[in-house]
Amino acid sequence: MDIKNYILETGQRARAAARIMAIANSGSKNQALEAIAASILEQEQQLIQVNNKDLEAARQNGLDSALMDRLALTPDRIKAMTDGLLQVSALADPIGEITNMNYRPTGIQVGRMRVPLGVIGIIYESRPNVTADAAGLCIKSGNATILRGGSEAIHSNQAIADCIRTGLKSADLPEDAVQIINTIDRAAVGELLRMPAYVDVIIPRGGKGLIERVSAEAMMPVIKHLDGICHVYIDDRADLNKAIDVAYNAKTQRYGTCNTMECLLVAEAVAEPVLTRLGAMYEEAGVEIRACEKSRKLLPNSKIATEEDYATEYLAPVLSLKIVTGLDEAIDHIEHYGSHHTDSIITEDLSRARRFLSEVDSSSVMVNASTRFADGFEYGLGAEIGISTDKFHARGPVGLEGLTSQKFIVIGDGHIRK
Amino acid sequence: MDIKNYILETGQRARAAARIMAIANSGSKNQALEAIAASILEQEQQLIQVNNKDLEAARQNGLDSALMDRLALTPDRIKAMTDGLLQVSALADPIGEITNMNYRPTGIQVGRMRVPLGVIGIIYESRPNVTADAAGLCIKSGNATILRGGSEAIHSNQAIADCIRTGLKSADLPEDAVQIINTIDRAAVGELLRMPAYVDVIIPRGGKGLIERVSAEAMMPVIKHLDGICHVYIDDRADLNKAIDVAYNAKTQRYGTCNTMECLLVAEAVAEPVLTRLGAMYEEAGVEIRACEKSRKLLPNSKIATEEDYATEYLAPVLSLKIVTGLDEAIDHIEHYGSHHTDSIITEDLSRARRFLSEVDSSSVMVNASTRFADGFEYGLGAEIGISTDKFHARGPVGLEGLTSQKFIVIGDGHIRK
Repeated sequence: MDIKNYILETGQRARAAARIMAIANSGSKNQALEAIAASILEQEQQLIQVNNKDLEAARQNGLDSALMDRLALTPDRIKAMTDGLLQVSALADPIGEITNMNYRPTGIQVGRMRVPLGVIGIIYESRPNVTADAAGLCIKSGNATILRGGSEAIHSNQAIADCIRTGLKSADLPEDAVQIINTIDRAAVGELLRMPAYVDVIIPRGGKGLIERVSAEAMMPVIKHLDGICHVYIDDRADLNKAIDVAYNAKTQRYGTCNTMECLLVAEAVAEPVLTRLGAMYEEAGVEIRACEKSRKLLPNSKIATEEDYATEYLAPVLSLKIVTGLDEAIDHIEHYGSHHTDSIITEDLSRARRFLSEVDSSSVMVNASTRFADGFEYGLGAEIGISTDKFHARGPVGLEGLTSQKFIVIGDGHIRK
Repeated sequence: MDIKNYILETGQRARAAARIMAIANSGSKNQALEAIAASILEQEQQLIQVNNKDLEAARQNGLDSALMDRLALTPDRIKAMTDGLLQVSALADPIGEITNMNYRPTGIQVGRMRVPLGVIGIIYESRPNVTADAAGLCIKSGNATILRGGSEAIHSNQAIADCIRTGLKSADLPEDAVQIINTIDRAAVGELLRMPAYVDVIIPRGGKGLIERVSAEAMMPVIKHLDGICHVYIDDRADLNKAIDVAYNAKTQRYGTCNTMECLLVAEAVAEPVLTRLGAMYEEAGVEIRACEKSRKLLPNSKIATEEDYATEYLAPVLSLKIVTGLDEAIDHIEHYGSHHTDSIITEDLSRARRFLSEVDSSSVMVNASTRFADGFEYGLGAEIGISTDKFHARGPVGLEGLTSQKFIVIGDGHIRK
């Protein structure tokens, strides 16, 4: 197979499909999403069989159990996939929305119209459900998409792609609006990243290695999601009950997610009452604590935290802990060690809350709330394709709007510039 | 001079200044802008003297007269520079604006807060007034900036930078918020482009060569402005008087700007009355016409247009011309040859206007208006740092808002995720 030529043709087909998708009406796009969901439900048995092939191959290749779990399609997961498509179908169509249309002194009217980005490349790892989720968001936002899933899920992804094509066809939309790269050759990714004429933006979803490779090689913009080193700062004017609830929830509600707290900062003045209670709760939950010198005096069972610990996203029942003098030191610590993902202050003091909100430069900044809320569904975006830690274009959870752009529109009546 | 180290230190100082600028209040930022304007006016004589040094060196280096003209500072241009600063000072401060703050079903409130991008690198050619314009927009939008002007303007730029530092200082803002790169060594640009930890976005302002180099080398996002191959399409349902006025204005009001029409498309059914009148007007204005076979029958004095002509931004009194069968061919031509900058349809037909607005994928799409309106001032942005032909982040004229980002903010009252 000539990889270069195959990817080039995929790009050209995507570009042609993108022009049609950009002007497709909401009704057709929703019809496609519903037809895809119906086709996936209809094919449930076949999908599970095909997925078993991938699972069998993965087992032989010695994939670890966490990855095996992510690869597996079950009736519940298939249902979740189709529910997701129907939810996206129910969302308002962002495309064509005209805002800020105003008359200018010259008499022209100037406004902005929301339009698709064009062709979106998505590179992801084992979970086959991303195939349907990503396709759904791209279809609804009027984009064409080129999907490159993990090699271990290739049969599952192809089977889901068949359902997607069926759905697009039944709504008279171009089947090339969603294309799957049908080769496990890694050179295909390189070709995709070097094709800015046919791919407008790349979204990598996966581990750090993948994201770094894509960022370095891509010749088009990247919506990237780096580490989530999230902090909770318990201020000395915090309500301690709220503080303990939030700090416990932010760490323990789920360990493997990017919005999980990885570092707890506690103001010196309240460290003793807070840490005595929280320490016991974390211990019972099996959370290992890596603490600064001061906090180890209150929690003698904890390990000592290294510089590296404060810069680590554990994604595990491990927590960095530091006692700080107050708000200034907390903000400095977050600026120095954080990843600009999600950080929360617990305080009843309005001016400190205001300062934290404006001074902490993260994609989500919170007051008296668990970092675990940083999520497209919780924020009301209806769905998300990822969480961006960039400042450019899309920041934080990225929903339909992040997959669009705004162009200026001008209406005159023969107006000329004087 | 150790260029690598010098640029690194410049970046570190900019990053530190950016933290302070991000939380500076509107009053201080406006005070700085007004003080910079006052300082520039006060230094008018010195600025002109220093500028004469640059002009003298340029003359000896054989710079052409157009570039010499762009390099020159006159009392009028100095006045325009300070007026620009005062205009930016009068604009609303975009930073800190909170929008879409809504309660979610869980009880948390979620909204978005507008924040600066951080450190903005601007690379530009001969015009020294860009130094003040760019600094003004970056200060008002709470960013720090690193400016790299053309080597031929280095003394003028340094003198303006001194005024900027004076103004920042008098408003108690960090002088490092605006830094000028004080070397003409081209390696400095390369270093700047490889420093994503200290520069959040790069804006090149200048010729095609500069923009292509920056886009290829930059490791951070680029707000770029490529060619303006702008079209006017005269539909067969156009009011011919409006059509002729707009097509004449779009070409002749100024030749050297990116929003000048470079190609006129005319529907076959109205080609004769339109081109007979317009041809004579263009001829009188000294506009050379490069026409398709069909239109040459109506304008026998015109040259034949080549494929390359349709893909060229002349920036001169030259116009490509093509007769098309109608709207579909016009849109296809614009998609194929255009640069996604600014395109206008002249028609009285509502459904064709609607189609043109949604199907033409350009940063500005117009109905019955001259392409020359595509400009930050005409659009009411108050000022512009450039016109982006990208779809990502900022599209079309980029004002203060394009130099900002939005983060999510969440307010709870001890809310935890269930």
